[in-house]
Amino acid sequence: MQRINLEPIGFVKTKAIRREVRDRSNISEIFLYPDLVEALDGIEDYSHLFIIFWMHQISNENRTMMKVHPRGRRDMPLIGVFATRTAFRRNPIGLTLVELLEVRGNSLTVRGLDAFDGTPVLDIKPFDRWDMAEPVRLPEWWVKLEREKNTKEQ
Amino acid sequence: MQRINLEPIGFVKTKAIRREVRDRSNISEIFLYPDLVEALDGIEDYSHLFIIFWMHQISNENRTMMKVHPRGRRDMPLIGVFATRTAFRRNPIGLTLVELLEVRGNSLTVRGLDAFDGTPVLDIKPFDRWDMAEPVRLPEWWVKLEREKNTKEQ
Repeated sequence: MQRINLEPIGFVKTKAIRREVRDRSNISEIFLYPDLVEALDGIEDYSHLFIIFWMHQISNENRTMMKVHPRGRRDMPLIGVFATRTAFRRNPIGLTLVELLEVRGNSLTVRGLDAFDGTPVLDIKPFDRWDMAEPVRLPEWWVKLEREKNTKEQ
Repeated sequence: MQRINLEPIGFVKTKAIRREVRDRSNISEIFLYPDLVEALDGIEDYSHLFIIFWMHQISNENRTMMKVHPRGRRDMPLIGVFATRTAFRRNPIGLTLVELLEVRGNSLTVRGLDAFDGTPVLDIKPFDRWDMAEPVRLPEWWVKLEREKNTKEQ
C-alpha cells in the first residue's frame, strides 16, 4: 500500500487557550506557508470553509481509545469514538466548519475554529451545497456549473 | 514537530467505477478493521456521517498543483486548489457527507460516498448541528447536552 504521507500546509494562530477555543465566536488566523499562497485564489468567494487539522497534542495512548463519555461527562453513555467528535480517535484529524472573515496574502482570518495555537493545518475545503447547509455564499462559477447540471438532469 | 502518522481504519467497497462514484445515489460499504468494531457503538443514531478518506490514486505530481479549472472545465476560471474540492491538493484527503443506511458488525452501508473501491478510510465523524444542516437525526445524549448548554447560556 502507498504510504500515507502528510505535510502541514500551514498553522493556526490564536490567542485563545485551553477550552476557550471551543467558543464559537473565537477568532483565529490560519497562516499558510507562503509558497502556497497561489492555491488560495478565489477562496474569498466563500462564506464558510472546512478546516482539516492535525490534533498534535493527542498522545499515542489516547489514539487507542475505543469508547468515550461524550464531552467527558460520566453521566452520559459510554459510546464508540466514531459516534462522537472526540479528539481521542485512531487518527486525530480535526474537522471544523468556520466562517471566513478575511483573506490577506497567506493569512485567513476565521471565526469558530476550535484548534489550539500552533496546530498544523492539513487541508482547507470550501463549504458548498453538497455539505447541505443554507444559506451559503458561493462563487459564480459554482452556481453556473450547478445550474447547468440541473438543466441536464431535467 | 511530531511526525504525522496515519493509519487506515478500514476500506471502501463499491461496485461503482470511475465517475459513477460521483452519483449522489451511489451506495457503498465501509468495512472497518474488525478490531475497531467497538468504536462504532452508537453510530446508528445518526442520519449522516462525514467520511474522511485517503485519495490513494493521486500522484505526487498532482499534489504539487496550485490551481485548477473547476471540474476540469477549461471554460471555468483557473482558481486555487483550496478554493475548490478538487482531489489535486497538497494532502489528498477526501471529505464527504454521506447518509448512513445500515450498520452491521464492522460494516457501514452509506449513500453518497464519492470514493473509489479500495479507498483507505481515515476517520468517520458524525454530522451534528455544529455542521449546520437541518433536519438531522441525533442521539438522545447529544440533544440532552445541547439543551443543557443552551439553558446555561440564557
